[in-house]
Amino acid sequence: MNLLLLEEADFIAVDRVVLRDRRLVHMQEVHRAAVGDSLRVGRIGGLMGNAQLLRLEAAEAELHVSFDQPPPAKLPLTLLLALPRPKMLRRVLQTVAAMGVPKVVLVNSYRVEKSFWQTPFLEPEAIREQLILGLEQARDTVLPEIIIEKRFKPFVEDRLPAMTEGTLGLVGHPGDYPACPRGLDEPVTLAIGPEGGWIPYEVDLLAKAGLQPVQLGARILRVETAVTALLARLF
Amino acid sequence: MNLLLLEEADFIAVDRVVLRDRRLVHMQEVHRAAVGDSLRVGRIGGLMGNAQLLRLEAAEAELHVSFDQPPPAKLPLTLLLALPRPKMLRRVLQTVAAMGVPKVVLVNSYRVEKSFWQTPFLEPEAIREQLILGLEQARDTVLPEIIIEKRFKPFVEDRLPAMTEGTLGLVGHPGDYPACPRGLDEPVTLAIGPEGGWIPYEVDLLAKAGLQPVQLGARILRVETAVTALLARLF
Repeated sequence: MNLLLLEEADFIAVDRVVLRDRRLVHMQEVHRAAVGDSLRVGRIGGLMGNAQLLRLEAAEAELHVSFDQPPPAKLPLTLLLALPRPKMLRRVLQTVAAMGVPKVVLVNSYRVEKSFWQTPFLEPEAIREQLILGLEQARDTVLPEIIIEKRFKPFVEDRLPAMTEGTLGLVGHPGDYPACPRGLDEPVTLAIGPEGGWIPYEVDLLAKAGLQPVQLGARILRVETAVTALLARLF
Repeated sequence: MNLLLLEEADFIAVDRVVLRDRRLVHMQEVHRAAVGDSLRVGRIGGLMGNAQLLRLEAAEAELHVSFDQPPPAKLPLTLLLALPRPKMLRRVLQTVAAMGVPKVVLVNSYRVEKSFWQTPFLEPEAIREQLILGLEQARDTVLPEIIIEKRFKPFVEDRLPAMTEGTLGLVGHPGDYPACPRGLDEPVTLAIGPEGGWIPYEVDLLAKAGLQPVQLGARILRVETAVTALLARLF
């Protein structure tokens, strides 16, 4: 936790917060904070700044807060991601939040196991929890938007073309395709497949929606690693 | 597991192997392989090729194997890594093996907790296990070399300059430094710090050994994400 993220409910005055949950435990056990200490804070969806620890008790802490700094810029990216297996989903959500992806579409694919859609990690509160961990890690305050699309074809045919408009559309896909471009400034829509990859029908449909296949070399990376590698290369 | 990696002890003839361990379970439960099926195989440290499943029983499988393809090229890189916490160490070892890093030096740093050096995950067999998982994921056969340096100063002063010679030396470090370069062909020595970063004394000592600080932007990434992002950007 490199940034203490504050929710509206934490505020007891315009410049005062009281914390009682895992953030309190983290201050006590990891930061080993003491009264008078200064900590970096951010307001969810808002500015970042500093807090001074006014009171630290076993069950709660009170901090004086001030905000003066905008969060870091997001990437100009919409990430379309075949739903990963539940354990990987949690890590990927942290990673995309940490790396500054503003919008993620979790989509079905032929090689996504049906059971993955049943995971409790897709509940809004569970998704939010992982995103918060990523924002706390990277020092950002703005939650990415997560869209869930359980049906591939209607999403790709009916809604993806409008999303892709005015962006460079790419599909990460191993094979005899151009290498993924580097260091772009323009907005991108990037699709990353499931373990085992998209099937040819899906690649065709994505291409019709304006997303062209690009590859990262012969090595097959885990989804989380592929997401990080593609974003680091693109921007 | 995208490649079934074979050890010398698996061979019962020049073109025959018998498997009894987790690889057998994986074939049975994940691949749901049947006699006659073809699988991708690799010989640790050697070529890759194909296997045909000759016999599949509850306790063992026999395969006919042939090898005709070299493993993918490694990156021209030596990675110097402050020892991560044990859980992260395991994932980072998988990641570096998957991404094709040929040589990793795990080194001490002021912000590496002393207890991290006591982890059983630093035993040679435990390290090898994680590297194998990374190679199986990415389809490679060549184990990276892992060097353990428990004392920062003697390593950086006495041994690092020779390692760095003829390479571009870089230290990933947040701050007012040049941006990490992109798309290099030349050999690189890259140092990545612990959670919380290198201390200034360490950055100075690394600079004297020929490694110059570069940064990846304002976002603070977990070690595993930073490793992947820096490698994807550099090569």
